[in-house]
Formats: sequence, structure tokens, C-alpha cells
Amino acid sequence: MNTTPDWFPALVKLLGPDKVSAAPAALDAHAGDKWSASHPPDAVVFAESTSDVSAVLRFASEREIPVTTRGAGYGYVGGCVPVLGGIALSVMRMNRILGVFPEDGVAIVQPGVITGDLQDAAREVGWEYPPDPASLKDCSIGGNIATNAGGPRCLKYGVTRNYVLGLEVVLADGKVLRTGGRLHKNKTGFDLVGMFTGSEGMLGVVTEATLRIIPKPASRAMLAAIFPGFPMAAAAVQEILNAGHLPSALEITDTFTLDAARKRLGADVFPPGDAHLIVEVDGRPAAVASEIDELHRLLTELGASFIERAPDEESCERIWKLRREFSFSLRDTGLTKLNEDIVVPRSKLVALVEFAKKLQQDTGIPVACFGHAGDGNIHTNLMVGDYQDPEVKKRADHALDLLFTWVLEQGGAITGEHGVGLAKKRWLLQAVGEVSFDTHQALKHALDPGGLLNPGKFL
Amino acid sequence: MNTTPDWFPALVKLLGPDKVSAAPAALDAHAGDKWSASHPPDAVVFAESTSDVSAVLRFASEREIPVTTRGAGYGYVGGCVPVLGGIALSVMRMNRILGVFPEDGVAIVQPGVITGDLQDAAREVGWEYPPDPASLKDCSIGGNIATNAGGPRCLKYGVTRNYVLGLEVVLADGKVLRTGGRLHKNKTGFDLVGMFTGSEGMLGVVTEATLRIIPKPASRAMLAAIFPGFPMAAAAVQEILNAGHLPSALEITDTFTLDAARKRLGADVFPPGDAHLIVEVDGRPAAVASEIDELHRLLTELGASFIERAPDEESCERIWKLRREFSFSLRDTGLTKLNEDIVVPRSKLVALVEFAKKLQQDTGIPVACFGHAGDGNIHTNLMVGDYQDPEVKKRADHALDLLFTWVLEQGGAITGEHGVGLAKKRWLLQAVGEVSFDTHQALKHALDPGGLLNPGKFL
Repeated sequence: MNTTPDWFPALVKLLGPDKVSAAPAALDAHAGDKWSASHPPDAVVFAESTSDVSAVLRFASEREIPVTTRGAGYGYVGGCVPVLGGIALSVMRMNRILGVFPEDGVAIVQPGVITGDLQDAAREVGWEYPPDPASLKDCSIGGNIATNAGGPRCLKYGVTRNYVLGLEVVLADGKVLRTGGRLHKNKTGFDLVGMFTGSEGMLGVVTEATLRIIPKPASRAMLAAIFPGFPMAAAAVQEILNAGHLPSALEITDTFTLDAARKRLGADVFPPGDAHLIVEVDGRPAAVASEIDELHRLLTELGASFIERAPDEESCERIWKLRREFSFSLRDTGLTKLNEDIVVPRSKLVALVEFAKKLQQDTGIPVACFGHAGDGNIHTNLMVGDYQDPEVKKRADHALDLLFTWVLEQGGAITGEHGVGLAKKRWLLQAVGEVSFDTHQALKHALDPGGLLNPGKFL
Repeated sequence: MNTTPDWFPALVKLLGPDKVSAAPAALDAHAGDKWSASHPPDAVVFAESTSDVSAVLRFASEREIPVTTRGAGYGYVGGCVPVLGGIALSVMRMNRILGVFPEDGVAIVQPGVITGDLQDAAREVGWEYPPDPASLKDCSIGGNIATNAGGPRCLKYGVTRNYVLGLEVVLADGKVLRTGGRLHKNKTGFDLVGMFTGSEGMLGVVTEATLRIIPKPASRAMLAAIFPGFPMAAAAVQEILNAGHLPSALEITDTFTLDAARKRLGADVFPPGDAHLIVEVDGRPAAVASEIDELHRLLTELGASFIERAPDEESCERIWKLRREFSFSLRDTGLTKLNEDIVVPRSKLVALVEFAKKLQQDTGIPVACFGHAGDGNIHTNLMVGDYQDPEVKKRADHALDLLFTWVLEQGGAITGEHGVGLAKKRWLLQAVGEVSFDTHQALKHALDPGGLLNPGKFL
């Protein structure tokens, strides 16, 4: 049972009662994200402005209170769990799109804006905000920036970092930093925008972002192909790129996932075959039409046993919807999905799937692979029982040890999209090595000497 | 007259006589770049390996000797001038392309590789390294990374940072940091790759880079249009983007530059008109052909008085060659070109050119504008006498004060491509503000506590 901390009345006085709560329901609602770990804060602040955030951080740094910032809470690694209690700082009331400016190619937003809402606002004026994490209808831009979120379209369009042009950030001591702006190039000093993007709330609190938008591609189209085997589909990924295509998405799915999807959606939803490949292209209408013809011929030559053609936006969305069912299909197994967003050099896709099969044999834990083949960023899902059960957790963590060790041996990364948070904390040193780890510590100490911003995480 | 420092024999002993020099010719050759400032180092080291670099930095940090790293020396801001003497650390012998790996979509290079050589190597296997600084036949990848170099194609393809996937960096104390890798996504910890990219040799020495390459667009084509006035050409830039096109380049040129080019190349090389606009697109052959038709119609509607069509690679290169003559045309005036790579929000292109005209009237210094219109990154060239002459320098710096103050008032940046170096040092604080400046200092101190890496620059 938490007791209200002695600094709580002063915090209420500072911000007003509407913006601060220590009610059990509020504490519960701000204790975790979509991962398994959870710990309540001592108080929740609902910031409504940059000056609120600044006041909270000044208050917290004077009293050495931990502050864990959070957006929509749709993270997958426990990144916003306030493990040391203190203040959970929600920016979800700072949810205004301050403007969409095609004439400058930017949108300016507060951190609590839902990613999908920004996409809609850009599309309304014929422009596009490309980053497309799977949770885009629920996740916030602040969270996307904290984790440098990716998505299927990153192959062509790059990750969130490539779209952050300017930031307003409140530093640990409450000072307000503005860096970058509504500019598509800026070489004034160090890359502070990059420093804060992906820093998982450990270096500062983003209170405003100036984001790059691009002219909306007028058209898109897709091929969804079935291949007899995974190696043929992985080879097709390489051939498509080698032939000079840069698709907006290249998504691959293994047998395990495909079978689960057939179980959920009906055996006839996919023709027989052991791998599924999505190739999406976008651009000018005439360009898309001719490129999809070229790709159709190429996939046929490469041995696709079935090719479905989605010639327009609407039919593409139908296939993406089916694709999103893959996650639900895995959940239908009744098991918990440990979604590990590992990355391997693209040439090692087949090796990864073979390793996953072996891992399944050795540990008895089913492993399902699907994801962003063009990036080598394959969601490798370990299907386990209740991860809170110590026995299950022990076996699962052992399997993760094997997986991550193999991935790192291949020159891969333990996370491509979700971040480190709590979920991957114990593998960070192994992943980056001692010199990099020490450099992380030095940077953290430089910007947050008291160690109060999102403490208890990977540093 | 320099005297050989007392630590010189120990340095020779450490690295061997072939890799160290204090000969006057060597000192002179490593005293500056393409900007006006110059100061000789006390010794030059020609590093041949990461362990050479590591040994030098260990040696220097133990003895508190300044180290100024340099690549090809093609910078425009005096960024590699060893203003405090010490060691000039050349990485130009580390010039091997370690591999081009289309199967992973990467090339791995040493820092002394010439950018154009990397482009050629990628193209040989049908792939492309997109960043294209104007000096690409002379500049080195290490320098590109140090300045986060841009170029015309950044509008579609982004700056150097977007292509750096992994780095090996020797830190100030000689420790070797490896971060990132042959991976297209990586969210393991902070963005150290971004931290070092663009840090102008002040945080570490890059000894190896893993760079992203992309499938080479099979085709490109270009329109070069003349408009009666600059505002019409600037409006065309907006309309092209609003119509959903994302050209690989959108380059604009003002009257002053155009007239200088006519003087150099003959009055008939460009038809009459006050502004020149280049629109280049790339992609699949059929796509490029149809898009260039669309753009031709659009430019006609928008009032272009003349449109030259370059339907293929070869004819595009001919127009780029002409475009590069613009710089030489300005030099023909006999004046020194202070090339200021300022950036404004794209909607302020016309305001910039109007301000440039007024600046010319007020200061008597001719001002020529041309550059990357899509990015708002316009090279604003102040044509002055001998910049080393104190009287000329005083008048030029006053004009730069006026220019940069105006640019910053517009929400612009004082440098989009070249970096700060010495040339823009005195405007940095004004440009970034106190909180950002202090943050820069904190990061610099965290990674280089002795302040030995490229000292005397903007921090």
C-alpha cells in the first residue's frame, strides 16, 4: 500500500488540484505500459503546458524525486514504468496539433498527439507523415520520439528520427531547450534533436515537436505473394532490391504465423505455401501501375506460387488489415507473445528463421517470425505461458538469452523499434559493449546529473 | 616560426617516422581548408589504422596536446584549422572501401575514402550512395560525417546522417567505441551515431563507417526552366510539392547569378528571364518518363517562359555541369565569394531574395543566391574583396551580422551544410541560445573533458 508522499501537498499547490492526483485509480493507470512489468508512481501529474513540465522538473530536482514521463502508454518494453515511484508525468493533455504547414513541409505538434491523428491532419491537406508504427491509432508522438519508432514503411521512408526537425525539450533542471526548427537542413552545432530522439525519457521531456511532412504519394499498390518456402521468399526480398526497386514496404511471414492465421481466418484465406511476402510501392499513379507490373513478373519468375494484386489504396488497406490479424492469430494460441523486435543484417533472414526453428526444438517454446524483411527487422515472437510465473519467466529468459546471443553474434541488434526499457535492460551491456555503455553513462550524467529522469531503466 | 615541440621525438618513436612529420611543407599543407583562416600544427600524423589513431589520442591526452583531425580538407568553414597548434591528425591514408554489400544494403569504408569513389563503387554493383555534396570528387567520407554533409538530392534522400548506420570512433582518451552496425534499424540505447555525425571532430575521431546504400534508381530526368521572375519560380517550387511530387532535386537561381553565368558562358546559354529552376526526378524508367511529362505541363501552367528537357542520365549531367559553372561565374567577378549556406523555412524563399537585394543596396556588397530550394537551403554568396584585409573583413562581417540576424528572425539557420567551424563561431550563441549552448558544453565536457579534440572552435 502506497502512502501519499510528504511533498504531495506542495506539488498540488504548485500546479493546482486539477493537474495532480494520488488517487489509487490514477496511480494504477500510470503504473505500466503494454509489457508485463508494473509499478505505481507516488503521484501523477497531468501537464497541460511547457511551463507545467518545467515547474514539475524544477520541483522534482530540488527534492530529488524521480520523474517518469509517459505518453499513451503503448510501449512494449516497460519503458514508462515508474519503477522507483515518484512522479508519473503524463503529457497526454498536451495533445494539440499546433499547425500543419505544407508551405514549409512541417507539422508542429504537442507530444500527446496520437500518431494516426497527425497522419489524418497531414492527409487532409494532401501531405503525409510517413512513420507508421503498428499502434498508430493509439500511440502518441511523444512516445514515438522517445523510442524513435519505426514501422513497415521505414524501408523507404526511414524511422521517426528522420522526421523530427525541431524539438522543445524541458531538461532535468526545468530549463527549456529549443533546438532545430521548421527547417529541412540545419548544421548549427551538435545533433541535439538526434540526442533526445530515442532517449526513452532519460535525458529530457519533449514538450513540442516540429515534424517533417512530405507530399502524399498519389497512389499505392501491393502484391501479396505466397512462396513454397521461406528461403525463396527471403531470396525474393534480395532480388526485388537488386533489380532497383525501393518498395514502401517488404513484409515477410513464416510458416508458424501463417498456419496460426489459417486457423483463425480459415484455411482458404491463404493458398498453400510456407511463406507470405507483401510488396507495396507508392508514387505517381502511372509509375505505381507500371512498377507493380514489373514486380508481378519478377515475383512469378522467382517462384511465387500465388500472387494477389491490390491495385489501389483500398485494396492495400484490406491486405494490411489481414496482416494485422497475424498478431491476433498468435494470441489465439492462448499463449503470451513475447514480441522481440530484433534486427539482423538482411542477408541473414533465412539463418534467423532456421535459428528460430532450432530454438523452438531446444526450448520447447514456439517461435513465430514475421516483419519488416527489407530492414532485417523481424518480430520474433516467443509464445510462452504466464510471463509473471517465475518458472515460465526463467525458461523464457533463458530462450531470450539464446536468441539475443545469437543475434548479436550475427552483428544484429536486440531491438529495432521498441527500445530497451525494462524488457531488454539486462542485455544492454552485452549488446553495446563496455565503451559504449560508459559513453551512455557519461551522456546521461551530463544531462541528468541527479539521475531523476526515468530512473531504474537501462543506465 | 614554429619550433618542433619537445614531445615530437616520442611521437615519432610511438608511430614510426613514416607516419609523423614536422616538415614545413607538411605543416603548411595541414594548416587549413577552403576557408580563409589558417594556422599550422606543430606536427602532422598520417594515421594508417584505428590503432594508430588510438595511440595518438592516448599520447595526446596524457600530454594535453590539442588534436585536430582532418580528412580531405575541402571544408568551407575552417573546421579543421589547428588554431591551437598541436597535432594535425590526417586520416587520408585510411582510404579503403572495406566492402560494398548489396545483400545487406551497406558499404563499409574508412574515413579517408573520397565520396565520389564510394558512389562509383556502389554504382558498379547497381546500388547508390545518395549524399552528393558539390565537392564529392574531392571531399572525404570522414569530412562528410564530421559536417553531416548535404547536397541537392537531400530533398528526397536526406543528409549524410540518414546514411550512417554504424561507426567506429576513437574517443578522446584513445578508447575505441563501436556503435550501430550493418543494420537498417537499431534502437539499442541512445543515438550515438547521431551524436558523432556532424560533431565537427570535437567529440571523437571516426575510423570506420558503415553506410546505407539503396537500390540505384534505374532512370532520371530533368527539366531546367526559366521564369520571368524569382517569385514565380519560388511559387513553382511550392506547387510542384503540393501536387504530390517529391523530386530528387529542386534547385533555384537568382538574377544576379544568372547574369554572371550569361557573362561567362555567353548570353544565349539561357533564354531571357530572371530565375532558373531545375527539377530532377528519378525512379523506374516508365515512372520517370510519365512524371516528367506531368511536371512539364505543370511548369508551363505556372508560367515558365522556357523549359529545357533532359530525358536521361547523360543530359541531366550536362545540366548539372552547367549548374556547377554558376560558382565559377561568380568567381569571374574577381571578388571573393563568402558562401553562406543559410536555411530559411521554404515559404520564405522570396523574402530571402528580397532581403538579399536590400542587403546589397545597404552595404554595397553584391549578393548572389542559388541553391536547394526544396530544402530552403539557399547558398547566399556575399561577393567581397580580400577577406584577409581587415577593412574588407569588417564590412563583410557587418553584412553577415545583418544577414544572420535576419535569417534567425525568420526561424532560419546560419548553416545547413557546411557546419560552424571558425567561420560561424561568433554567431553560434546567437543562433542556438543559451540553454542549447550550455547543453553543447555539457556534452563536449562529457566526451572530451580535457578539451583536446579540435579546440578553439565553436565551444
